[in-house]
Amino acid sequence: MNTHKQLTIGLFGFGVVGEGLYKVLQQTPSLKATIKKVCIKNYGKKRNAPASLFTTDKNELLNDHDINVIVEVIDDADAAFQIVSTALVNGKDVVSASKKMIAEHLPALLALQQQTGRSFLYESAACASIPVIRNLEEYYDNDLLHSIRAIVNGSTNFILTKIFEEGLDFKQALLLAQQAGFAESNPVLDVEGYDAVNKWTFLLTHAYGIIESPENILFNGIQNINAGDAVVARAKNQQIKLVAQAQKLKDGKVAAFVLPQFVKQDDHLAFVKNEYNGVVIESGFADKQFFYGKGAGSFPTASAVLSDIAALRYQYKYEYKKLYHHQPHELSNDIFLRVYVSFDDLAFIPRDRFEWIEEWYAQEERKYLVGVISFDELKGNNWWKENNTSLIVAANPVIEDIEVRKLKKKSLELAGII
Amino acid sequence: MNTHKQLTIGLFGFGVVGEGLYKVLQQTPSLKATIKKVCIKNYGKKRNAPASLFTTDKNELLNDHDINVIVEVIDDADAAFQIVSTALVNGKDVVSASKKMIAEHLPALLALQQQTGRSFLYESAACASIPVIRNLEEYYDNDLLHSIRAIVNGSTNFILTKIFEEGLDFKQALLLAQQAGFAESNPVLDVEGYDAVNKWTFLLTHAYGIIESPENILFNGIQNINAGDAVVARAKNQQIKLVAQAQKLKDGKVAAFVLPQFVKQDDHLAFVKNEYNGVVIESGFADKQFFYGKGAGSFPTASAVLSDIAALRYQYKYEYKKLYHHQPHELSNDIFLRVYVSFDDLAFIPRDRFEWIEEWYAQEERKYLVGVISFDELKGNNWWKENNTSLIVAANPVIEDIEVRKLKKKSLELAGII
Repeated sequence: MNTHKQLTIGLFGFGVVGEGLYKVLQQTPSLKATIKKVCIKNYGKKRNAPASLFTTDKNELLNDHDINVIVEVIDDADAAFQIVSTALVNGKDVVSASKKMIAEHLPALLALQQQTGRSFLYESAACASIPVIRNLEEYYDNDLLHSIRAIVNGSTNFILTKIFEEGLDFKQALLLAQQAGFAESNPVLDVEGYDAVNKWTFLLTHAYGIIESPENILFNGIQNINAGDAVVARAKNQQIKLVAQAQKLKDGKVAAFVLPQFVKQDDHLAFVKNEYNGVVIESGFADKQFFYGKGAGSFPTASAVLSDIAALRYQYKYEYKKLYHHQPHELSNDIFLRVYVSFDDLAFIPRDRFEWIEEWYAQEERKYLVGVISFDELKGNNWWKENNTSLIVAANPVIEDIEVRKLKKKSLELAGII
Repeated sequence: MNTHKQLTIGLFGFGVVGEGLYKVLQQTPSLKATIKKVCIKNYGKKRNAPASLFTTDKNELLNDHDINVIVEVIDDADAAFQIVSTALVNGKDVVSASKKMIAEHLPALLALQQQTGRSFLYESAACASIPVIRNLEEYYDNDLLHSIRAIVNGSTNFILTKIFEEGLDFKQALLLAQQAGFAESNPVLDVEGYDAVNKWTFLLTHAYGIIESPENILFNGIQNINAGDAVVARAKNQQIKLVAQAQKLKDGKVAAFVLPQFVKQDDHLAFVKNEYNGVVIESGFADKQFFYGKGAGSFPTASAVLSDIAALRYQYKYEYKKLYHHQPHELSNDIFLRVYVSFDDLAFIPRDRFEWIEEWYAQEERKYLVGVISFDELKGNNWWKENNTSLIVAANPVIEDIEVRKLKKKSLELAGII
């Protein structure tokens, strides 16, 4: 019925996602998008596609005038940036799944989009099959987005589910995740939160117009969470999730972090189990929305890449409304978090750096406390990640400066118990 | 950054949604969409907008060459169709929230879109703030959509939640819904399932390319559900929801209906409480996805209308891929449903029309049975809606013809008990 731009695709990468996309495209002839050439690193492997489709020379794709779309699903962030930037400069639209590359090169990628006028889409880079970027772009306006909280990493969510539901310790659960194919053999990127904070970096741009490099966002992974923490969570009728959170403060700034968090059983994020992802958005107009789906895997990722390709037919572009059409928000460090900290030895815990301590539990092997601490203290120091210390933020953790000043006096007494 | 079509809007209707949209647009200057004129039925009411904005003459909007978008959020389905069809013929893009009008006039509206080449968008007409139509259009391809199950009516879901959680009877729960503003003073459209089946009509088009008038789709509401049914549900560790369901059968056809249904506690739809809506989509690539949000109300509806308006800036159109680019699916009547039926008097229940009875319970006041019955029997007869009979389909209710033939023999004995 409608006439669309004809898409001729140059594909970089033929791993699980690239091959998934190839299969998906074959099964969706209605898209009328064809892959003309696939660039791979080497010819070594056996591929489930005609040999004539492949090349190892990236310029065969980037300089081909027939190819008007570059799809990039490779692992190497630096190579991906080279490919994407060259493709944009050469007048091609680009679809990418490389969250690390996007997080690290966002300012340059924004500039390239403005300079070239081409589309650069990357729905699959965050939460794969959940259309979170498109929804942030299309459905939410700057002033109205109260908060966004999300589980954006399936590997860690799988591990936490196993710790919580089966009482496994972190290492056992990680092993199980690796056996199930939900964690890499080198799981550091997932487990220590790098993958989650990378995704959070550009979701913050779409949600609030914030441009910040990942290392400037407070984050941690789940490497120190243990079965004892899960016991405490259960006793409090809560679960532990690795939550990426951003919320607007009274002063108009935004508090954002990626940290393990206690979530109540009736929190929508508690519903998200195993390798799934979920996003809860609270806004003035649409109220509370919850999106849930597979956040990784070849077909869910390929399906998101496919939806970007479909959108290119009508020249869809991200507008970055919150960045260009509004006064973008700033990140705030001027907040306090209510946190649970469990540890082996109090000697490692600088308790005088807490504003106050609200709860305290000790037995021979493992101790914990719940207290309020400044965001700056957590950003500036690493004691809470070291010596087998586990930090989990409480449900509703954000306390703004003004509240702390009010509450401080009351809490001094309680703090006295330790 | 991007240049877009300038949108000058003619708005029909200034009720809760129309006024909500007016406010939302004022708060989203980034859209650069302006309402030039609002057509209302009469000047009687006090409006929270300048008097010069209003007219009672529809032609002032429909014949104004400056106005390139008509947004229609009125209650009267026949008047809405007149407005929408004239607007399309006059070369304007149209956004509508009138589910009843769309359900009843779908073939004509499809023809008008093809004939005029204009956009006709109606995301708000189903599940309001949940972008279900856009996601069906963009994310799912015909062959790959295994099933879609949804709660599409907030009023009935609110009532069922109250029956289930607070043990209220239907009438008490309805009263509560009316007091809370979640049900009309004349609640028949919601309560008896008309609203849900209207929405399901065009969601079936986007999901499977099916064009069917609402009266040809098997549906019922919740008017006969009572507290006793909720007791049975709880005993089976299930809930009762009004579920709109469509699923692909082995023969390539689609089974579709809107009926009260038992859902297991771990079913995603069991998560949907009170006035919320939810959609569970199972597909080959994206696997299982769940969308949850407010399905009604002025701001959630206005936010969906707004997203349609935003999409018009880049000439977005529904493609109806499953209708035009594929062999559309057909609805099947050649299936059987496993159903629970509760009733006061067995005399009203034609038990010989069941393929077999699997479960049977009787006490003085209320009785129930669980049995397998043909789709045709339910479509062709009304005994299951009359005489205070309550029919609820079981979890995983669809049984295909071939299975029934296998199972029939085994079940004869069981049936013998009554």
